[in-house]
Amino acid sequence: MKKEYVLTFSCPDQKGIQAKTSSFLFSNNAFLTDVQSYSDKKTQSFFSRIVFSFDDLDGIASSFMNEFDELAKGLSMNWNIDDLNKKMKTLIAVSKEGHCLNDLLYRTKYKDMPIDIVGVVSNHETFREIVEFNGYKFHYLPIKDNKQKQEEEFHEIAIQSDTELIVLARYMQILSQNFVSKWSNNCINIHHSFLPSFKGSRPYHQAYDKGVKIIGATAHYVTEDLDEGPIIEQDVERVNHRDTTADMTRKGNTIESNVLAKAVRWHAEKKILLNGPKTIVFS
Amino acid sequence: MKKEYVLTFSCPDQKGIQAKTSSFLFSNNAFLTDVQSYSDKKTQSFFSRIVFSFDDLDGIASSFMNEFDELAKGLSMNWNIDDLNKKMKTLIAVSKEGHCLNDLLYRTKYKDMPIDIVGVVSNHETFREIVEFNGYKFHYLPIKDNKQKQEEEFHEIAIQSDTELIVLARYMQILSQNFVSKWSNNCINIHHSFLPSFKGSRPYHQAYDKGVKIIGATAHYVTEDLDEGPIIEQDVERVNHRDTTADMTRKGNTIESNVLAKAVRWHAEKKILLNGPKTIVFS
Amino acid sequence: MKKEYVLTFSCPDQKGIQAKTSSFLFSNNAFLTDVQSYSDKKTQSFFSRIVFSFDDLDGIASSFMNEFDELAKGLSMNWNIDDLNKKMKTLIAVSKEGHCLNDLLYRTKYKDMPIDIVGVVSNHETFREIVEFNGYKFHYLPIKDNKQKQEEEFHEIAIQSDTELIVLARYMQILSQNFVSKWSNNCINIHHSFLPSFKGSRPYHQAYDKGVKIIGATAHYVTEDLDEGPIIEQDVERVNHRDTTADMTRKGNTIESNVLAKAVRWHAEKKILLNGPKTIVFS
Amino acid sequence: MKKEYVLTFSCPDQKGIQAKTSSFLFSNNAFLTDVQSYSDKKTQSFFSRIVFSFDDLDGIASSFMNEFDELAKGLSMNWNIDDLNKKMKTLIAVSKEGHCLNDLLYRTKYKDMPIDIVGVVSNHETFREIVEFNGYKFHYLPIKDNKQKQEEEFHEIAIQSDTELIVLARYMQILSQNFVSKWSNNCINIHHSFLPSFKGSRPYHQAYDKGVKIIGATAHYVTEDLDEGPIIEQDVERVNHRDTTADMTRKGNTIESNVLAKAVRWHAEKKILLNGPKTIVFS
Repeated sequence: MKKEYVLTFSCPDQKGIQAKTSSFLFSNNAFLTDVQSYSDKKTQSFFSRIVFSFDDLDGIASSFMNEFDELAKGLSMNWNIDDLNKKMKTLIAVSKEGHCLNDLLYRTKYKDMPIDIVGVVSNHETFREIVEFNGYKFHYLPIKDNKQKQEEEFHEIAIQSDTELIVLARYMQILSQNFVSKWSNNCINIHHSFLPSFKGSRPYHQAYDKGVKIIGATAHYVTEDLDEGPIIEQDVERVNHRDTTADMTRKGNTIESNVLAKAVRWHAEKKILLNGPKTIVFS
Repeated sequence: MKKEYVLTFSCPDQKGIQAKTSSFLFSNNAFLTDVQSYSDKKTQSFFSRIVFSFDDLDGIASSFMNEFDELAKGLSMNWNIDDLNKKMKTLIAVSKEGHCLNDLLYRTKYKDMPIDIVGVVSNHETFREIVEFNGYKFHYLPIKDNKQKQEEEFHEIAIQSDTELIVLARYMQILSQNFVSKWSNNCINIHHSFLPSFKGSRPYHQAYDKGVKIIGATAHYVTEDLDEGPIIEQDVERVNHRDTTADMTRKGNTIESNVLAKAVRWHAEKKILLNGPKTIVFS
Repeated sequence: MKKEYVLTFSCPDQKGIQAKTSSFLFSNNAFLTDVQSYSDKKTQSFFSRIVFSFDDLDGIASSFMNEFDELAKGLSMNWNIDDLNKKMKTLIAVSKEGHCLNDLLYRTKYKDMPIDIVGVVSNHETFREIVEFNGYKFHYLPIKDNKQKQEEEFHEIAIQSDTELIVLARYMQILSQNFVSKWSNNCINIHHSFLPSFKGSRPYHQAYDKGVKIIGATAHYVTEDLDEGPIIEQDVERVNHRDTTADMTRKGNTIESNVLAKAVRWHAEKKILLNGPKTIVFS
Repeated sequence: MKKEYVLTFSCPDQKGIQAKTSSFLFSNNAFLTDVQSYSDKKTQSFFSRIVFSFDDLDGIASSFMNEFDELAKGLSMNWNIDDLNKKMKTLIAVSKEGHCLNDLLYRTKYKDMPIDIVGVVSNHETFREIVEFNGYKFHYLPIKDNKQKQEEEFHEIAIQSDTELIVLARYMQILSQNFVSKWSNNCINIHHSFLPSFKGSRPYHQAYDKGVKIIGATAHYVTEDLDEGPIIEQDVERVNHRDTTADMTRKGNTIESNVLAKAVRWHAEKKILLNGPKTIVFS
């Protein structure tokens, strides 16, 4: 089995980006197995995700990296090359609604979700049993007087476990700017509304009161502005006048699990690139 | 062919509503061909739509109406009995985007849309030709210095043509509170966003800037608060990072036409009941 | 807390059904909290589901049942009256794909799924652990030489546990006509295609080969004709040329879980009535 | 305004395709404004669509074409280079259902549909008026004794008007293998079902009888096997037990118009590549 790598980059749009990039890869005997790109005419930026492999098993030489870095500098690129099949170390946070957690645990165990769960953090004991049954470490971090201290412990657990991605799977706590800034672009939240509608608390109740005919859920990167970070994925389901808030919650929970699972998968597969306050998803 | 009638009513929820109503209809020899009802546990209100017919062709006697009125008073009902097959007199307003107008004209001519178009009002000449080709009167009401006067002419045309329903098919003008109050519950607007997101102008540009992954359209009754009236129907379509505002507009236009056509049909068929700021749609 | 009952019935359409039924309930001092009905003009049949309660706690007297039976005979009704809040005894069958099972277990434990799981039957040991962790009995029934005997054991387990509903949650075994006839209308299957497309085995591979742009899943009652029973619910998701059969399977699995959960919930809530080879779902 | 070109090609997958192609374009001073590609691992084929422009206004030199042809031969490419902004000459065929026709006419006149309608062919006079009102030639080709002769006239009209694409907008006639073979890959049909379900006639009646919970429509290239050609696009809408065949037809008609409009647009924009019996759509 060959090793596969994924190159992701963005740079100012200009002539020759693809010629130079693909020629470099070809001259290094790489086989391109998947290429997706996007030119944003408004911001005049170029984005690409290229999966490639080599015939031999040696992997990428450091000379390859150095030469590509030269090329990238010439094009003012932000870039990364990652091992395609390396699973992303992921820390999950949950409060008292466990459907997203349960879904992620199942997918990771049985459905090739490309993450390596390093643990689960919670401010409640509710899901200790299911987490430990699945063989993961459960960190009970109750929020008492000192929320700052609790957050520091959360952060410390992430650091100690080499966490690359934090998933807020209905964590229901507003994180401090300090915490968020440390994990920006590496922290995904699921919000139980079709953003930008119904930010903040009790979105299904807001949706019920408004009388909308469709509800939704939104996975987004966490930023310092609550429920405002770059949207990764959204999905919706139809409701009608017969649906109570309990019905909406149940229907919505299903969407939340699915939308969050997609966002986490895409992030782990390096399929999401940031374009200012928006995302490019090479799904 | 038998005459069919549609009874719609709402009243405080209580024991015996259905027993009394259906017994009255049965004792008058009515055949119930469609019954839909809904008990709102939160507001403790009951809503129903009953389609019924008689064996003979005589239609409804005035004694029937008087007796039902007695019954209705006893239950504190708001009620209406309408001829099911009578088309609703409808006045359409449009500005410079004609996809909803074109769709309504086609459906009315070829697809059994249960409305009788009494004319089209516009502040632009753009669609005179297509309206007149379809055999309807086109009223050009430009907005110059005096918007109030233009609205008065709009209202006068509606009155003169016995308009029962005004459809704002991308009319793009904010109507005065005075106008709105005269047509409340009888004026449907299509807004080109998934409300309550992106109220006001240029919603597709707002959606583009926000980076949402799904766009939508909303048909609602017009109230004095802009883009805030009771929602009748919504629909959505997926977009991605490749979609420009032009792409979103094109995708959205299609949703607008479909959503508006459904709302107009349901209103004309007496399938929509108001429940405070929300709608009950017996679709 | 009052006891609530659900009356479901079907009968030839005729004058007076609702008058007689609701008058009977009213005269017995019942409060109707939810009524849904449907007249099928093609088959001239009437279907209804009525939820009602009494002020006192005594529940339904046998005289009530006898009198209603008289009424029902006069209208040639098929009817049932059930305790609305009694959970349905459900036996789940699974093979080697456990996403539907896992979803049902979670919903039953945490999300008010109105079923009482009496056990899980499987021809593989794969999911013993997760079933037992959730506190249910796991019945390993391997299929060796004698499939008939295995089915008899399956049936015997159902009988011994007072099973009311069998759920084939990706059981992947074709059941004999003998078995099916014993559980007809009380056995729900999830098929991983948008029926009637792609019956039989490996539907995602069939969908891939055909190049469809949307895939789906179908929950249906099991009948003697494979993948042909009355359809309860379907849902779909968009795919494109980039999706491999593995991608389609993953996307489809999510739909399967959701569709099956809806079908099981509706069945347990007595919301599904049969109309020949089709279903009426008062969802 | 610069001229923009679109290069589409497919070839056996191999190392260096993108390097060679993009280097050639870069060396000719082309600016790549949109690149989409796809490697089909199963058939080991590579597909790409590249939009590019030059700084000067001279357009493509013949030397450019000759040199690219050399390159293409070396990679065993099937390729085309087209003027991106040239509208595709399109002949529409219709019978007695005009919603798709009306939609295409409106989009072409007001919504930048990138086609140049060269005429409308019909076996009925129904839509002569609307076609002529829109300024297009209407060809009445009734089918009497001699269907072969009628088809020859249809084909002759297409040839005389330099037709590049034939759109069967609910034409409802089965075309002969002879006709189809002449227009293969250049003839799009809309079928009013979610293929492969409900091929042939009266698909909404088939769907009604089957009791499906979702209906759909399919745009596909016409091949010699009825309703079997490569699928371009599909969409669906939910139905329930209350929907009659008339309701399904009305809901379906809306889907048909939308799906067909997308397929025609994508074809005209050279966004569809054939991959055996399937399509690749760079939408």
